[in-house]
Amino acid sequence: MSLPRYQWRTLSTVERQELMQRPAVRSNTRIAADVAAIIEQVRRDGDDAVRALTATLDGVALDALQVTAEEIVAARDALSDTDRNAITAAIANIQRFHKAQIPAPIRVETQPGVICERIARPIEAVGLYVPAGTAPLPSAAMMLAVPATLAGCDTRVLCSPPRKDGSLDPAIVFAAYAAGITQMFKIGGAQAIAAMAYGTATVPKVSKVFGPGNAYVTAAKMHVAADAAGAAQDMPAGPSEVLVIADAHADADFVATDLLSQAEHGADSQVILLTDSAALLESVNSAIERFLQMLNRSDLIRAALDHSALIEVPSIDDAIAISNQYAPEHLIVNTTNARTLLPKIRNAGSVFLGSLTPESLGDYCSGTNHVLPTYGYARNYSGLGIDQFLLQMTVQEATPDGFATIGPIAATLARLEGLSAHALAVDVRLAQAGQ
Amino acid sequence: MSLPRYQWRTLSTVERQELMQRPAVRSNTRIAADVAAIIEQVRRDGDDAVRALTATLDGVALDALQVTAEEIVAARDALSDTDRNAITAAIANIQRFHKAQIPAPIRVETQPGVICERIARPIEAVGLYVPAGTAPLPSAAMMLAVPATLAGCDTRVLCSPPRKDGSLDPAIVFAAYAAGITQMFKIGGAQAIAAMAYGTATVPKVSKVFGPGNAYVTAAKMHVAADAAGAAQDMPAGPSEVLVIADAHADADFVATDLLSQAEHGADSQVILLTDSAALLESVNSAIERFLQMLNRSDLIRAALDHSALIEVPSIDDAIAISNQYAPEHLIVNTTNARTLLPKIRNAGSVFLGSLTPESLGDYCSGTNHVLPTYGYARNYSGLGIDQFLLQMTVQEATPDGFATIGPIAATLARLEGLSAHALAVDVRLAQAGQ
Repeated sequence: MSLPRYQWRTLSTVERQELMQRPAVRSNTRIAADVAAIIEQVRRDGDDAVRALTATLDGVALDALQVTAEEIVAARDALSDTDRNAITAAIANIQRFHKAQIPAPIRVETQPGVICERIARPIEAVGLYVPAGTAPLPSAAMMLAVPATLAGCDTRVLCSPPRKDGSLDPAIVFAAYAAGITQMFKIGGAQAIAAMAYGTATVPKVSKVFGPGNAYVTAAKMHVAADAAGAAQDMPAGPSEVLVIADAHADADFVATDLLSQAEHGADSQVILLTDSAALLESVNSAIERFLQMLNRSDLIRAALDHSALIEVPSIDDAIAISNQYAPEHLIVNTTNARTLLPKIRNAGSVFLGSLTPESLGDYCSGTNHVLPTYGYARNYSGLGIDQFLLQMTVQEATPDGFATIGPIAATLARLEGLSAHALAVDVRLAQAGQ
Repeated sequence: MSLPRYQWRTLSTVERQELMQRPAVRSNTRIAADVAAIIEQVRRDGDDAVRALTATLDGVALDALQVTAEEIVAARDALSDTDRNAITAAIANIQRFHKAQIPAPIRVETQPGVICERIARPIEAVGLYVPAGTAPLPSAAMMLAVPATLAGCDTRVLCSPPRKDGSLDPAIVFAAYAAGITQMFKIGGAQAIAAMAYGTATVPKVSKVFGPGNAYVTAAKMHVAADAAGAAQDMPAGPSEVLVIADAHADADFVATDLLSQAEHGADSQVILLTDSAALLESVNSAIERFLQMLNRSDLIRAALDHSALIEVPSIDDAIAISNQYAPEHLIVNTTNARTLLPKIRNAGSVFLGSLTPESLGDYCSGTNHVLPTYGYARNYSGLGIDQFLLQMTVQEATPDGFATIGPIAATLARLEGLSAHALAVDVRLAQAGQ
């Protein structure tokens, strides 16, 4: 197949906007209704509902929903040394990068005798969802489990859909356990989100749910996040995407395989190349055709490439401006001067600099988190970090001298807003200090 | 009036749960429908719709929606020196505390030759909403404008409802301008949120909206946040609340005026006292009755006190456990050893330590932000800080040596997940390096 190719300078403003439009995601009212019914059922019938839904939707009759210590040992033994070592090495890098994100407490004496602080506290109970649909995703388990554990969240629950034999994927179990999770449940889909958001006899209630998932999981997260009695969610979901900026020096095979990597995530993925080299654009197009023969999941890839684009731009600066406007989840800058371009990059979930930093590194093991804002959300949401597992609590304390100075300011502002009790709370204290 | 009084140890588990329940907030489908229609109208007709809605809902016919430079000067001149100085002093404290929150970039070499970074970028365009219903709230303008400006958000738009004479409240205008806002619009309610989330000919489109508001504003923020083409929101809203923990040494007048301060925010406010002293509880009850005579807004206060409670608890440790469970927006710890209790406090928006730190200080001028998670959201949301005006972007870069080590790990994990293009993107690079 040949990819859609464009020359930016020949396009009108409207054509440019249409080209950089994401594939529409239809809000599916049927899915929302199905999910609402599942959540209602789990809230009402608890574990019984979860078991019934798992039998119907996953085709597995389970007695025990929780993964046992024996099953954790068995999962470890089921993996090869190579796989185990890769998981352990990835976790170590993710730990190093996320540990560096733990915020130091802030303490400022804003005026003499008035001390203000901001102190992080772990969210007490968090729920992690790891999908296992077309492929099990141990990497998602690592990306969620590491920050939850480092943040010190007391209760850390993981749910993932069971396989037909009633077990969880061993790579997911091993990765989660190695990253600090001991409470794992064989529950998938909207029923997993409901069980974690509201709790059942066996699944602890959590106050925030994290992780990727299919349309049902996404709808369930939206549903519970809109309910004060439910659970907050990490970020809104959307199809995954990559934007590659490459110059004439880029290797076409590198660029092509980066685009194909993103495309294999799913039929709704979007991949975009911006290059100032017409020659590279053609070479990348040919390389994609050549590599496509070698890959499984080629149907998914072809579908994704259908709404993707190879675009020739006048300059690399233009490419950056277009990218900032598009706000890609993943941005690969495969140019000779990649590092020097970084200060110009505004909106992107995660940036991959240079020719030897394919998206695969960030997806698995460089240390950055692969849970990232997609679908343009890189304009207003950050990728996952340890901060989303923490609460920032502020503290203030005034000394008698501090209060004597700041009290009258507060009382003046309270009167300006017509809030007389606020002023009175200051005045009774000033009066007692004899001022 | 006499407040509802309880003894914790005489209550059953169910009674305790009911007592610490927040007043129900009915989700109002009529408001949601009205708001959806307003948003649709603004998206379709832009400024014309805003003008028409302002005429209908605020009773003001406006030609120009934007506040002019002359109006900003006039607002400053309309205020007394005392008021101006109080606003300026408060802004200086808020700036000091929020400036200290600007995160340093993080750079970690997770393994030799693999560099990972997390760099903050300002959200390019933010919208700030300042209500002016029962009372104009210049303090809200300060709390939103200071972090937006310090974060470096390029476009900072403020909307507030016009008064009957077609002007904005001068204290709001002066506070916003002094804190770094120059683009102010005379637009209130759902139409303000719609104008900022989608943009009009005169109001710039923003990608995140912040600030408190009435039920229409809250519903509009929820509506635009659920649309990828709309704008994210700061946090879910709920009625304001305070929980005071006080021991026998606390001054009853201080505690009473703190409870009254919170109660005057609105009829749906909730105020709770937890004390281990039966004598203090009775003194506070008497003091509230006494002070209530002196206050305006006493109807609002009485309504709020109706669903509030003075509770005698066995010990201060019990009080902290109950508070952690309740997760109050504001927590005042008026005990002799307040500072030493801080490590035990888990879930609270903002904490006020000791006898001389009334909530008024944090509401106006200590330096902390008064936009805080309420209604139990202190379990899963942080109060406003500079971080919510920033995006955290991650970056990674591998050197040839780094790639030689980490590449095979990524390829192993990609194969484990059945993602062959991810592995290929590594393999073509390893092959070219001759490995």
